[in-house]
Amino acid sequence: MKSSLVMARLLRVLGGWRSYCSKRQQERVSDDFVETLKAVVGEPNVSIAAAVREQHGHDESMHRCSPPDAVVWPQNVEQVSQLAALCYDHSIPIIPFGTGTGMEGGVNAIQGGICFNLTRMDRVLELNADDFSVTVEPGVTHKALNSYLRDSGLWFPVDPGADASLCGMAATGASGTNAVRYGTMLENVINLEVVLANGKILYTSGQGRRFRKSSAGYNLTGLFVGSEGTLGLITTATLRLHGIPEATVAAVCPFPSIQAAVDSTVQILQSGVQVARIEFLDDVMMDACNKYSGLTNAVAPTLFLEFHGSNQGLREQLQRAEEITQQNGSSHFTWSKELEERKQLWAARHNAWYATLALRPGCKGYSTDVCVPISRLPEIIVETKEDLKASGLTGPLVGHVGDGNFHCILVFNTEDADEHRRVMEFGKRLGRKALAMNGTCTGEHGIGLGKRQLLKEEIGPEAMETMRQIKAVLDPKNLMNPGKVL
Amino acid sequence: MKSSLVMARLLRVLGGWRSYCSKRQQERVSDDFVETLKAVVGEPNVSIAAAVREQHGHDESMHRCSPPDAVVWPQNVEQVSQLAALCYDHSIPIIPFGTGTGMEGGVNAIQGGICFNLTRMDRVLELNADDFSVTVEPGVTHKALNSYLRDSGLWFPVDPGADASLCGMAATGASGTNAVRYGTMLENVINLEVVLANGKILYTSGQGRRFRKSSAGYNLTGLFVGSEGTLGLITTATLRLHGIPEATVAAVCPFPSIQAAVDSTVQILQSGVQVARIEFLDDVMMDACNKYSGLTNAVAPTLFLEFHGSNQGLREQLQRAEEITQQNGSSHFTWSKELEERKQLWAARHNAWYATLALRPGCKGYSTDVCVPISRLPEIIVETKEDLKASGLTGPLVGHVGDGNFHCILVFNTEDADEHRRVMEFGKRLGRKALAMNGTCTGEHGIGLGKRQLLKEEIGPEAMETMRQIKAVLDPKNLMNPGKVL
Repeated sequence: MKSSLVMARLLRVLGGWRSYCSKRQQERVSDDFVETLKAVVGEPNVSIAAAVREQHGHDESMHRCSPPDAVVWPQNVEQVSQLAALCYDHSIPIIPFGTGTGMEGGVNAIQGGICFNLTRMDRVLELNADDFSVTVEPGVTHKALNSYLRDSGLWFPVDPGADASLCGMAATGASGTNAVRYGTMLENVINLEVVLANGKILYTSGQGRRFRKSSAGYNLTGLFVGSEGTLGLITTATLRLHGIPEATVAAVCPFPSIQAAVDSTVQILQSGVQVARIEFLDDVMMDACNKYSGLTNAVAPTLFLEFHGSNQGLREQLQRAEEITQQNGSSHFTWSKELEERKQLWAARHNAWYATLALRPGCKGYSTDVCVPISRLPEIIVETKEDLKASGLTGPLVGHVGDGNFHCILVFNTEDADEHRRVMEFGKRLGRKALAMNGTCTGEHGIGLGKRQLLKEEIGPEAMETMRQIKAVLDPKNLMNPGKVL
Repeated sequence: MKSSLVMARLLRVLGGWRSYCSKRQQERVSDDFVETLKAVVGEPNVSIAAAVREQHGHDESMHRCSPPDAVVWPQNVEQVSQLAALCYDHSIPIIPFGTGTGMEGGVNAIQGGICFNLTRMDRVLELNADDFSVTVEPGVTHKALNSYLRDSGLWFPVDPGADASLCGMAATGASGTNAVRYGTMLENVINLEVVLANGKILYTSGQGRRFRKSSAGYNLTGLFVGSEGTLGLITTATLRLHGIPEATVAAVCPFPSIQAAVDSTVQILQSGVQVARIEFLDDVMMDACNKYSGLTNAVAPTLFLEFHGSNQGLREQLQRAEEITQQNGSSHFTWSKELEERKQLWAARHNAWYATLALRPGCKGYSTDVCVPISRLPEIIVETKEDLKASGLTGPLVGHVGDGNFHCILVFNTEDADEHRRVMEFGKRLGRKALAMNGTCTGEHGIGLGKRQLLKEEIGPEAMETMRQIKAVLDPKNLMNPGKVL
């Protein structure tokens, strides 16, 4: 088919699609190519509808929507492989898509291309309870997995808040509130099945392997975890499971100062108390959560804690944690073993995002994410609050303080260009503050689109060059989620 | 200098060096080159003495000694960088050397070249107690670090048995008895300073960074951990530290069968008891340890356990562990909080190697290393014992059973070609048994020289090709510890 004819057809098919969406390269995907996609996955599993494309052109972040040229829903790894090989032959970008709950524009199709929506591959393939492992397809979310595991005595603890897909969580190196005890995705992924840009299928630890540890060759699993879809499409993940603790207790504790809250955290960690979650909320965030979730906590720097263990062991852990918080000036340490009360507490924590949005109805949110050595937390949090004030911005703070990781949830009027600019500048300054304190510009949200400059500053030219070399050798045509991370 | 002259000098200098050592490429290193090395590190820090080279041509394994052409002792990273750049310019292999306590021939200079002995870089550079991190040079061993940390309330738990250097342990992805609770090197390395083959210096997480977690870019730290010196020289490691537990209890428990010991292990792990070590010894190994270390344990499949926690919490953990072992048919569960008794127990465990060698004085040992899903352990252990019997080999079994990882320590007469052959064939069969059970051919010893064929079988052609591509792009001249892993 001549290119002018292709163009004419495309313009007809794509007519009326022009929207606010950016940089779409409509000429990339011919309708012949769309037909080829349909031949692989069946007509109902391909869409070029504007609404569908736009829905797949963004995540939960403030990055401008960039829709793909088409969306495909493969049903199995063979289809993913065939589709990737087709894209490879035609040099068309490939963008993996899970639940779209990312925070740094990781799924935005900034160079157009085909969005691979993997959520229709949603089986739990193999549970090996005695070996504490499970293998899942990309459509299985962490909540769906834990629901599946209900009667097994096991659970998967990594919980980023949103009900994200487990393979997506592997792709972004997610973590969340339980990481202080159970680790991040990095520590909980055993093996990945990955489709490379050229359609070849790779098992990062070898096909079917599900050992707890190995020192056989290079750690490809760790390389693909957190690669944000830029090296390959994750089509199954084998994950490490944990025994459900006999008992769980949640506690809330307000402090006279940020320093007192962080000092308590360090001392609790040093004391050997096996805290499962230890979350910090600043006074503004505590106030917002009180209002949104109907709580009556003191408006002060606050820790939400959770302890997992045996009934008897928990008593001792609680007692020790309470002693430490009292020594740091806290006068209240309220705790509960009741499921409902605990649920309410963690629902309030996980609703921090919505509680913040409710502070300024009609505004949009942007959740930043930095991580510093824990000893630097009081300093960076105090400086951040001063910066917010000086910049005239609304941004409550909440964080996984046991890991030195915290978020500032900025709510701002996207129509107000000046406020938008101030938010962006604030985000960059916060990232650089973290870097100046030996920290990282992202503890768990990833680089995506928004932090590529900060990544360069963080890791330096040699590491950057090494990452570029690895990308170039695994994806020589730069088709896997192009424009992200590097 | 003309090449004939170089050769004449070399032959003079190297005269009399011919030994049993294999495949040395003497023509690689001219005495002019040796002078250049001396100009970088000073004359006392370069050696071409035969005894020194032979000492650096092997580790603790049975692989034939392959001495390097020269040994250098750099004093700092700048010297390592300059030396590497020199080797790179002259296309001379670079072999990193720590304590030489590896088990798979990782330091043998099978293509000759320059051995970089890094043990004179032995400073603890930075301790950040509040942040649970420390940065060490390559000469610091794990025992030296724990001695340094004595008064800090912190410790570094990864302990492979031998007093290996921490950077060497990072290079081989070491683990050991505490891994079931504290993880392997992979989970405990935060950042690495690495000198690449061309002399460039890379920080895997960015210079000076020491956060607990990050999702910034590709996980280069995890790529270099376990790369066995084939991608670069590790010149500092930033490590994660842990709080010293308030109390420690060790326990010993014999079982009527291997199955009962492994069932107890799985149930203890599932019960949420936070076991810090859980080691299995078969009857032959228990007998050998009794004799060597003057113990009086029953000659039966046995678990050595250790629990870390608070005084009160430990009582409960012990009680629960004892209940589980009783349910599985064990009649004795003896435990001790006394430091001396615990030391004696773990010394006996760590002396398993020598206890085994003492079974056949004058013979050599070979410690195999496989790891399987824990549910497959009884089967593979029983099959392995049958195989040993059928092969007429002496090989007690010992292992980190909580991780599904175990070793068979074979003692054999190296002069007996037939026995040597049977040992090699047994090792291959055991590796393949582990692979057939979804396991790995090495849980912690690495691939080195001996398991390159098994690695191919384990990970498959695509993963192998990906590893080769990564190696080629980071070390295009194949100078970094050539002939290992891939």
